[in-house]
Amino acid sequence: MNVSVGGRTRHFRTVAFDASKNSVLLIEQRLLPHQFEIIATRDFRETARAVKDMVVRGAGAIGATAAYGLAQGVRAFRGSDLQKFSKHVAAVYEVLKSARPTAVDPVNAMNDVRRIMSSGKSVLEKQALALAAAEEFANEDVKHCEAIGNFGAPLIRNGARVLTHCNAGWLAFVDVGSATAPMYAAQKLGRKFHVFCDETRPRSQGATLTAWELAQQKISHEIIADNAAGHLMQRGEIDLVIVGSDRTLGRTGEVANKIGTYTKAVLAKRHGIPFYVAIPLSTIDWNLKSGFKIPIEERHESEVLGAWGIEESPKSKVQSLTLGNRAYVRVANLTSRARNPGFDVTPAELIAGIITPIGIFKPRDLWKNRKQLGFSGK
Amino acid sequence: MNVSVGGRTRHFRTVAFDASKNSVLLIEQRLLPHQFEIIATRDFRETARAVKDMVVRGAGAIGATAAYGLAQGVRAFRGSDLQKFSKHVAAVYEVLKSARPTAVDPVNAMNDVRRIMSSGKSVLEKQALALAAAEEFANEDVKHCEAIGNFGAPLIRNGARVLTHCNAGWLAFVDVGSATAPMYAAQKLGRKFHVFCDETRPRSQGATLTAWELAQQKISHEIIADNAAGHLMQRGEIDLVIVGSDRTLGRTGEVANKIGTYTKAVLAKRHGIPFYVAIPLSTIDWNLKSGFKIPIEERHESEVLGAWGIEESPKSKVQSLTLGNRAYVRVANLTSRARNPGFDVTPAELIAGIITPIGIFKPRDLWKNRKQLGFSGK
Repeated sequence: MNVSVGGRTRHFRTVAFDASKNSVLLIEQRLLPHQFEIIATRDFRETARAVKDMVVRGAGAIGATAAYGLAQGVRAFRGSDLQKFSKHVAAVYEVLKSARPTAVDPVNAMNDVRRIMSSGKSVLEKQALALAAAEEFANEDVKHCEAIGNFGAPLIRNGARVLTHCNAGWLAFVDVGSATAPMYAAQKLGRKFHVFCDETRPRSQGATLTAWELAQQKISHEIIADNAAGHLMQRGEIDLVIVGSDRTLGRTGEVANKIGTYTKAVLAKRHGIPFYVAIPLSTIDWNLKSGFKIPIEERHESEVLGAWGIEESPKSKVQSLTLGNRAYVRVANLTSRARNPGFDVTPAELIAGIITPIGIFKPRDLWKNRKQLGFSGK
Repeated sequence: MNVSVGGRTRHFRTVAFDASKNSVLLIEQRLLPHQFEIIATRDFRETARAVKDMVVRGAGAIGATAAYGLAQGVRAFRGSDLQKFSKHVAAVYEVLKSARPTAVDPVNAMNDVRRIMSSGKSVLEKQALALAAAEEFANEDVKHCEAIGNFGAPLIRNGARVLTHCNAGWLAFVDVGSATAPMYAAQKLGRKFHVFCDETRPRSQGATLTAWELAQQKISHEIIADNAAGHLMQRGEIDLVIVGSDRTLGRTGEVANKIGTYTKAVLAKRHGIPFYVAIPLSTIDWNLKSGFKIPIEERHESEVLGAWGIEESPKSKVQSLTLGNRAYVRVANLTSRARNPGFDVTPAELIAGIITPIGIFKPRDLWKNRKQLGFSGK
């Protein structure tokens, strides 16, 4: 999507590839929102480290990064010995896989690349196929997000006030995003609307990443404390909620997403405000039979006990800041501890619809439409 | 309540008076939770400034501070001319009143003191009565909070997990507090329980003041992000909610309190968890006929866009901190703005009971019991 750099607006993807330098190009997300920088990895090991160190995050984005990283590693091979080549590919695969061992997207993406490579007859041919497959994976990710946008855009009427939680934006994908996709599509249609971004404590992805995205895209928006959405709904100031999902249960329609999502869904239900979840098909879990079985990660308490930001006297001007120089401040009482569940589960009854790349479904209809939605089991 | 100072646990009130030095003693709340300090004002002007500068905050606490400040000013008068004395008293009154012009408690407290003073025959007698009246006002505040505690304590069973929002603790009163009073009373009864403190963004009074109070009082507690309560309720980890109130409508039972309170009430209702509001009678508004008529203050956006804390590397030890040296960090995207409503309104249907110094009432029964609750109109 758009980023304003040095006074000019340019289009960027979160993940891209420079074939001439055999380099993966990544937005250095750890510097956002205060600094925009593209890093170019020199080899697949650097790419793996970027995934591990959270330069790039988000299911779609790390999938594409792994696909490109595999192509990068494959293309660095010199020689024509297919056996040696095969060993090399396996080694690259393992390094990239181990960068984020619990994530499923990098593995799926790399398996795609390997499958397509396998039809190549020579090392050179396989190398060319690997890059083509990685590009195809990234392009597919973008197409899926655009399709989510096209199905979701009609929900955002002129004058709509939309609430979103956390960041399910283009920074979490190759481009466009999931929860943000209908916003970007509605903007293309010329609609005027306003977005409230939950700041999304404790990690503040709404105040940092989503707000940055919307500002770059020139979409009207305001950040609110997570405490404020209920009041705004009560006073009739929110028309629609759209969030993303980390895992959606295909059998029950339950949605696991960033902590606080469930609360917003409960509030939306009370106020008769439609609550939508936008997802790529890869987040659907066809196995689990209950949301209570989704393990909820307890994250480090320091996230709740303090905040990361850049130092600023509240009255000083933004210009005087040293960008990219984030500091942690301890907010809470020093002798107190915190609980920090990272995700929560929203039941199907609170969800008006699941916006997918192939259409909008009632959450309880996912299972009925499982073949169409890519379920390959029984 | 208790504060651990230099390894010893001592009892403090938020507001007290040193008659020998004619000085109001205040806990410097702007330094909490990272530093505990008592300041002694030298004259009523310094006392007024302390109120204005938020050294002391909370309805009960600023009421008592104004009462003591008036006595302090009155006692500084030299001479026996009653006319000059009367002018002096009026001037002191105005200075203290203007310190927090929209608050009602300082005015009510000072009117009490003036009424009692009026029965004095001489300057000396009036001066003595003023101090006695201020002491009485402060003692009554404590008694009311203790009574709230006694009525509320039976709600906190052994093993209970209690959620509270913001700070309606002893720091907001002369002592004991409102929402915290049942906790302190239950602790005296030997009950074991656990408190979850909402951090209460954007000003973090839960993570700072309430957590500090509970830590000093050695009550088991954990801070949570405001986003986390819904998840904990869903997983059966919260049994009871107790909050305070800034304004309670006597005619409808609606409760205005810190932003986010309404959200917790909606969540509690969904999960069948009793939601209680603890209040002194002075917060009841007998005039307004609808919660929608309560003006909701929009506070400065910098509160939402950043956070106040002390600088700390997340891995460093607490000991290395320079205490009392709070810094503001900008968390949010620099080109984004924020909305910051300070309060919200919780309807009667979500409230299990209003805990007052004279008993627990259903919110819609306040009006029926208005005489008993101190309503003096028709």
